[in-house]
Amino acid sequence: MDISGWRKKIDDVDRKLAALLNERASAVVEIGRLKRNTNLPIYEPDREREVIANVQQSNKGPLAARDLARIYERIMDVMRSIQKHEIVPEDSPASHETEIDSQFED
Amino acid sequence: MDISGWRKKIDDVDRKLAALLNERASAVVEIGRLKRNTNLPIYEPDREREVIANVQQSNKGPLAARDLARIYERIMDVMRSIQKHEIVPEDSPASHETEIDSQFED
Repeated sequence: MDISGWRKKIDDVDRKLAALLNERASAVVEIGRLKRNTNLPIYEPDREREVIANVQQSNKGPLAARDLARIYERIMDVMRSIQKHEIVPEDSPASHETEIDSQFED
Repeated sequence: MDISGWRKKIDDVDRKLAALLNERASAVVEIGRLKRNTNLPIYEPDREREVIANVQQSNKGPLAARDLARIYERIMDVMRSIQKHEIVPEDSPASHETEIDSQFED
């Protein structure tokens, strides 16, 4: 297969990735709704370690465990912002404070 | 469904995401092998914009276009490091220069 063939394959994988990332975001929003009625914080370091351990255990390569961790740090960072907006509505004054966390890092 | 139920769902989605990320990495490695025989650079900004446009076009939410772009910036950053190591072997002196790019950002 030539480069253009591999890129078509990547585009196909990317559409599936986007769909799964959205499926994950929907679950995160649901958890955010449930958290409104509890004292659970948005940032739960133990749960985040559990998430990383789960993907690393299922990892068959060629990505290194560390590569997956780097990607998941960003995924969880984005998902945390979404959950924050679910708990603190957009139009509340507190929501503006959280904007800083969701800025582009690079 | 309670929080623990949603978390089981997330763990399941995450294992699928890890498998797809590895599928993507395999294609990137293949492209790296093909690039060895060409003058194509590892960093191709036009192609990276195309990748982001592709995932954003397929996006049905709840993730915002910008959230997907943030996640994809990290995915492409990790994939670029993998391709670099494919073109410049681990044991060559040049490979050590590239280490800086693959450090944790946060």
